[in-house]
Amino acid sequence: VRAIDEHDLIARYFGPLAADPAALELTDDAAVLAPPAGCDLVLTKDGIAEGVHFPAGESGADVARKALRVNLSDLAAMGADQLGYLVLLGLPADWTEAWVASFADGLSEDQATYGVALYGGDTIRTQALTVSVTAIGSVPSGRAIRRAGARAGDMIYVSGTIGDGALGLLARRGALAGTDAAQRAFLAERYRAPQPRCALAPVLRRFARAAIDISDGLAGDLDKVCRASGVPARVDCEKVPLSGAARAAVDADPALLELCMTGGDDYEILCAVASEDAGAFEAAAREAGVPVAPIGAFADGAGAAVFVDREGRETRFRHRSFSHTG
Amino acid sequence: VRAIDEHDLIARYFGPLAADPAALELTDDAAVLAPPAGCDLVLTKDGIAEGVHFPAGESGADVARKALRVNLSDLAAMGADQLGYLVLLGLPADWTEAWVASFADGLSEDQATYGVALYGGDTIRTQALTVSVTAIGSVPSGRAIRRAGARAGDMIYVSGTIGDGALGLLARRGALAGTDAAQRAFLAERYRAPQPRCALAPVLRRFARAAIDISDGLAGDLDKVCRASGVPARVDCEKVPLSGAARAAVDADPALLELCMTGGDDYEILCAVASEDAGAFEAAAREAGVPVAPIGAFADGAGAAVFVDREGRETRFRHRSFSHTG
Repeated sequence: VRAIDEHDLIARYFGPLAADPAALELTDDAAVLAPPAGCDLVLTKDGIAEGVHFPAGESGADVARKALRVNLSDLAAMGADQLGYLVLLGLPADWTEAWVASFADGLSEDQATYGVALYGGDTIRTQALTVSVTAIGSVPSGRAIRRAGARAGDMIYVSGTIGDGALGLLARRGALAGTDAAQRAFLAERYRAPQPRCALAPVLRRFARAAIDISDGLAGDLDKVCRASGVPARVDCEKVPLSGAARAAVDADPALLELCMTGGDDYEILCAVASEDAGAFEAAAREAGVPVAPIGAFADGAGAAVFVDREGRETRFRHRSFSHTG
Repeated sequence: VRAIDEHDLIARYFGPLAADPAALELTDDAAVLAPPAGCDLVLTKDGIAEGVHFPAGESGADVARKALRVNLSDLAAMGADQLGYLVLLGLPADWTEAWVASFADGLSEDQATYGVALYGGDTIRTQALTVSVTAIGSVPSGRAIRRAGARAGDMIYVSGTIGDGALGLLARRGALAGTDAAQRAFLAERYRAPQPRCALAPVLRRFARAAIDISDGLAGDLDKVCRASGVPARVDCEKVPLSGAARAAVDADPALLELCMTGGDDYEILCAVASEDAGAFEAAAREAGVPVAPIGAFADGAGAAVFVDREGRETRFRHRSFSHTG
């Protein structure tokens, strides 16, 4: 077991990331944040563990990216602008300084990409590599977007393409029929490095009545919106946007469509938009550089989400969502 | 491997803890906190792992208490009033629902004891039990107490008694010469359930020029204040308050005094108070119900902390502090 000199480690690798005044240069017991005036703070905390959320041998930068981005995705879904984060790095006995350097590099790049600041954190010993991030964002007071709020008649939109993350995990584990190497690499990258839809947050604040990030699978996460909003939903499977690579895999093995709809790790946004706002929402999303597509609508009555094929037949999934805790 | 239905687990055990409006009843992707007016938010994140920070087989309630309290201790040291927390619970494959119920009970009791609210969190699978807490407090804007700020001539105060935590770990592992069963139980309890000095936070805001919580050992944590403040310090070992149980152990084995001074897990507060404020500080601390004792003073010049015995001879420690990451 190699001892970590925590002070040295933090000073060398995390100090340079902590330029924001709230971080107090990582010299104190806590960070001190002056909240933006007129805003609520939005707080989310999610963690990832080796062997569960990422395979053993993943690079420090890849682990850092995933840990941070899944939290930024939660902020975006709430319509919050990301401000900063705290990170807990749990290192196993066989940690290396090179790995930590790569981890810090990954954070540093993402801080630049997403305009987010390191506020603080901690480094501890754990039996297996574990990273926990708390991300902090802001919304104008009372303007956070929730899962509750969808109404009958609202359109269901999703950002980006659905199913790449789940197929990417398969692609990393081996061949995926119907896909070429470039397509498998694309899918694997979508699994490895989620792209949180931070740019969509202000658009959601303007137009979304409800939103969620798709982390556990489109079907299961839509169920959550239905449950919170008290309305059922109907999704046209054909309208769910698939990437070219996902389309190739599904064409070769139609059973994979269910995986796309339920597999999770998409980190795209699902939201409810009043039908009269659809055009303005699409234009604003385009302006923000985020592709969005309508996949169905919320309905009257009770129940969860129903997925229908091109003939209007209901598709039943064996599992509605992927549980990261399973 | 038993699957966790995360939704059920959170609804059953954590939902009842989330009465604060910021938690949104744990139904959303994040918590939404309206920051108190005129305040800075103080944010700290610390984690504990089985086999590193607590032994295997610890009860859920004990793990919950330790995870939450070490974070509340950080807030207190900053002079912050605790508001709420987020918790990440990393469960191994052999988790049981009874353990989670006990964990939630521990949190529930501490929420009542410390007046702190659950804002959010997450439950994930990990290889070994790991808990990460992010605690959030508030101070009037610009009034957080830092490690920097001690000046030559300031007195060094500590709260409570020092060394119980480190001796408590020994007591749990077996006999401790010179102590009886009740004393060993007292020390073990001090290790198992830290008592964060939340009540001292407003007193620190009035009187402390610098503060830190003693988590890594008195000597090492005082060194941090010296380094941050740019002043050395001199501690009279005889003045460092020991509990009756610790005194008995040190009397039987004088070498244990070093462990008391460097062993960590005290979760007491060390602070710098101007000598002219000493009387008022002591009175205010007494009023707050927190015992405090002067143990030395900060000095002119350069260097770290010097510990002297009753004859004024410098005591040298082999290790200045205990590293939880070692």
